[in-house]
Amino acid sequence: MKFETKVGISETDKIFVHGYNLVDDLIGNITLADMAFLGAKHKKPTEGESRMLNAVMVAICEHGFTPSSISTRLTYLGAPEAVQAAVAAGLLGAGSVYLGAMEQVAEMLEDGFKKHGADKSAAELATLILDDLELQGKQLPGFGHPIHRPVDPRTVKLFEIAKELGFYKKNSETINEISRQFNERKGKPITLNAVGAIGAILADMDFDYRVMKSFAVAARAVGLVAHIVEEIESGRKEGVGQKLFDFIEENTEYIAKPVIKV
Amino acid sequence: MKFETKVGISETDKIFVHGYNLVDDLIGNITLADMAFLGAKHKKPTEGESRMLNAVMVAICEHGFTPSSISTRLTYLGAPEAVQAAVAAGLLGAGSVYLGAMEQVAEMLEDGFKKHGADKSAAELATLILDDLELQGKQLPGFGHPIHRPVDPRTVKLFEIAKELGFYKKNSETINEISRQFNERKGKPITLNAVGAIGAILADMDFDYRVMKSFAVAARAVGLVAHIVEEIESGRKEGVGQKLFDFIEENTEYIAKPVIKV
Amino acid sequence: MKFETKVGISETDKIFVHGYNLVDDLIGNITLADMAFLGAKHKKPTEGESRMLNAVMVAICEHGFTPSSISTRLTYLGAPEAVQAAVAAGLLGAGSVYLGAMEQVAEMLEDGFKKHGADKSAAELATLILDDLELQGKQLPGFGHPIHRPVDPRTVKLFEIAKELGFYKKNSETINEISRQFNERKGKPITLNAVGAIGAILADMDFDYRVMKSFAVAARAVGLVAHIVEEIESGRKEGVGQKLFDFIEENTEYIAKPVIKV
Amino acid sequence: MKFETKVGISETDKIFVHGYNLVDDLIGNITLADMAFLGAKHKKPTEGESRMLNAVMVAICEHGFTPSSISTRLTYLGAPEAVQAAVAAGLLGAGSVYLGAMEQVAEMLEDGFKKHGADKSAAELATLILDDLELQGKQLPGFGHPIHRPVDPRTVKLFEIAKELGFYKKNSETINEISRQFNERKGKPITLNAVGAIGAILADMDFDYRVMKSFAVAARAVGLVAHIVEEIESGRKEGVGQKLFDFIEENTEYIAKPVIKV
Repeated sequence: MKFETKVGISETDKIFVHGYNLVDDLIGNITLADMAFLGAKHKKPTEGESRMLNAVMVAICEHGFTPSSISTRLTYLGAPEAVQAAVAAGLLGAGSVYLGAMEQVAEMLEDGFKKHGADKSAAELATLILDDLELQGKQLPGFGHPIHRPVDPRTVKLFEIAKELGFYKKNSETINEISRQFNERKGKPITLNAVGAIGAILADMDFDYRVMKSFAVAARAVGLVAHIVEEIESGRKEGVGQKLFDFIEENTEYIAKPVIKV
Repeated sequence: MKFETKVGISETDKIFVHGYNLVDDLIGNITLADMAFLGAKHKKPTEGESRMLNAVMVAICEHGFTPSSISTRLTYLGAPEAVQAAVAAGLLGAGSVYLGAMEQVAEMLEDGFKKHGADKSAAELATLILDDLELQGKQLPGFGHPIHRPVDPRTVKLFEIAKELGFYKKNSETINEISRQFNERKGKPITLNAVGAIGAILADMDFDYRVMKSFAVAARAVGLVAHIVEEIESGRKEGVGQKLFDFIEENTEYIAKPVIKV
Repeated sequence: MKFETKVGISETDKIFVHGYNLVDDLIGNITLADMAFLGAKHKKPTEGESRMLNAVMVAICEHGFTPSSISTRLTYLGAPEAVQAAVAAGLLGAGSVYLGAMEQVAEMLEDGFKKHGADKSAAELATLILDDLELQGKQLPGFGHPIHRPVDPRTVKLFEIAKELGFYKKNSETINEISRQFNERKGKPITLNAVGAIGAILADMDFDYRVMKSFAVAARAVGLVAHIVEEIESGRKEGVGQKLFDFIEENTEYIAKPVIKV
Repeated sequence: MKFETKVGISETDKIFVHGYNLVDDLIGNITLADMAFLGAKHKKPTEGESRMLNAVMVAICEHGFTPSSISTRLTYLGAPEAVQAAVAAGLLGAGSVYLGAMEQVAEMLEDGFKKHGADKSAAELATLILDDLELQGKQLPGFGHPIHRPVDPRTVKLFEIAKELGFYKKNSETINEISRQFNERKGKPITLNAVGAIGAILADMDFDYRVMKSFAVAARAVGLVAHIVEEIESGRKEGVGQKLFDFIEENTEYIAKPVIKV
């Protein structure tokens, strides 16, 4: 029985990771985000790829109070000795609702290009993809935002950087065409959100759509550090976790009908 | 009821994070690891701080097959639709045994400096701290490694970078003095491992020891991306998760004594 | 702002849960599994319902070494101080692959009854449901098992108990008819597995299919106790977690191609 | 390489668990909580043991809104497709703060009995144990409660059942003597909470203190079913998770000082 891996192995005085010597080639030479790139592509990023990926991961790593960061704080309240559990609790809600759109956008574009031919123009592809969705009664992923309306400022910035670094290609063009045509069809502007934009940009960087969510999850883990730090700095009683729980306790209405004792 | 935070807040067209405008000041300007720095220090790192923290996080983010990365692969096997759960499962074992030494080293040094005076020499402090541990019958944290003996190559590299960037200060000096004297007392070389070295370096960067483990946990989350990618690329049947499970199934010996049916 | 709940509330000297007084009505009077019933149905189970639900939860709570119980053991290895993290890690793989069939079976039956009329015979419904699946190119959930072939002994036992207690109704009849006809169509016997059988039985107990998986997850949590106990009893070095990890370490082949240093 | 276990193994037509045949001996004959007993003791509980353990697990499985159940609801909000992640998130806060006292009480009693002789009277042992704690400047575990003051009604009920079933022995006697003497020393009544009482009762049932928390964690998993069900029944927009998050969003004050753009 042999377990094969390209990820890494340790020898007495050497550690190899993704084909590189961790100590000689990577520590001090690359950024943390580049390790995610290495994991997904089995080669070091170019400088442009590194900058783009860092920009993407910075963009989604922090968003203040979210269900995710609140779960982290509430978990820290009960288990301050197990910081890893607090981080894990904050990641667990990263499911279909908030981050799912990233891979859905990339998959939708990939499928659309395959079905209709990647040589068509972005405008043509956008029309065909929107038509397909309408026909199938499916929702368009990557659009809509409860706060950032009608524009998600991260979307604008990320496409700007993508253009500068040469990653604004067919996927980015098409999602922006979809955005334009979707607004037209709806008769009102609907936000192309950061998660949707990132799905297209990562696709333009040739990432498999199935690995994209793990980038987002890893970025979130970094963002959660700040929430744990703030709980530590506030101290148990003044922390947001405790205050929130106190507030809920004082404002809970129990609405079960009393059951006759049996 | 107001929930106060320095972490971040969203407005319609702006997102503020740690006092900065996420879009104008951070996306495209800083690395992912810098977000962890911002979270812990409420200010941007200098270039040196950014390079040092990236080096530290790269050093501990990946180590091939570990109990942690295997849990991630086994979890992915059952729930490929929930990548966040696979990452979380891999983080959950980041407890006292493998990563605890980071904060223990930093706390031990901080306590030693306070008790004995930070103005003493590193050699004197090392002696006093080792004496204290012996008296209390406590174990020295940050030493020993099952594979990297007698030298952890990451330790060497990280102190090298710390020297170059100006973070090799009293904590790093003292842990290295402790290492020298500890080997002398034991009469044999015992590895100062990477986790122990990082505890001292992060202390020299003025990080609170209580936030250190969350850096390690966040770095691990980035490392786990590679393990999920490899499971995706192998395909379900050829993945390490499935192969490992098959192997266990074929090699399990059931040793419970049969109980007479009651 | 009021947060309404039927689940429970605490007063100085009383705790109310699901309409009952926890101390006067529940502690000492009901079993642990009945608390899950209360949570899902907002009323106490009858004696028959309690026996059936306990039987179902006992049936799926333990299965020896599984990817789930191994993740628990590997997590315990790194964080023995955080037993909750070890249990959580073991639950996280309870995704679509192993347990998803429970709710899929129940949903398939519910949809089939709605579409074709619940007044049809089980045999007719089975035919129509199988025809629908074939037409849509969908897989039949709840069938197949890597070990228990062609019969899952838990399936037999659970239907036996369901008959005895009066829960062998239209859903159970139909899934057994589906089993018979599916074997005929395939020309060979294919296991109706325990998870599939439970989906039908819980549907016959009038549980919403969307809550079923949470029963399975809760049952698993109880089963994982045994795996943590065994790791504690074996001691760190002799535990399965450590032995397994040692074995992997000795049998890993690193297959990344070396990259020329850049 | 052989992995030995007493927990269980599967054959084609049989499943063995803890020395029993799962199908012939356990399904339909024992309760879910008995599976935890089997896991910890490797034998079936007597009827009294089963009743006592069910009472204990029912007592701690549900307590309305807690940081734990709120984390579950917030996680469900983002990942409704991964119920296992919502349950896991709710378990992760079951750390030292809320549940740690269970094993701490049992360990304190075991240590006290060993040090001072288990043949001394409960009153003598209580005095000696309290003296030891005072001398060491340690806190008494298992006492105090934010709501149930000065009496936790679950404590009263559980000791009542323990007496009835013959599990009110030296540990229970001693913790109650400790309670009496502690109140005397403090000059005011301080709650002996349910978690503390359970530590003593489980010790009187001869459970190892190191396995006790896993019982509590498993019980919590069952309790969390109700919170997931309530989120499902309320529907996404009316669920407590969403409402709570909306409330936080509207009531967040961002207090970071603006940083001059660099």
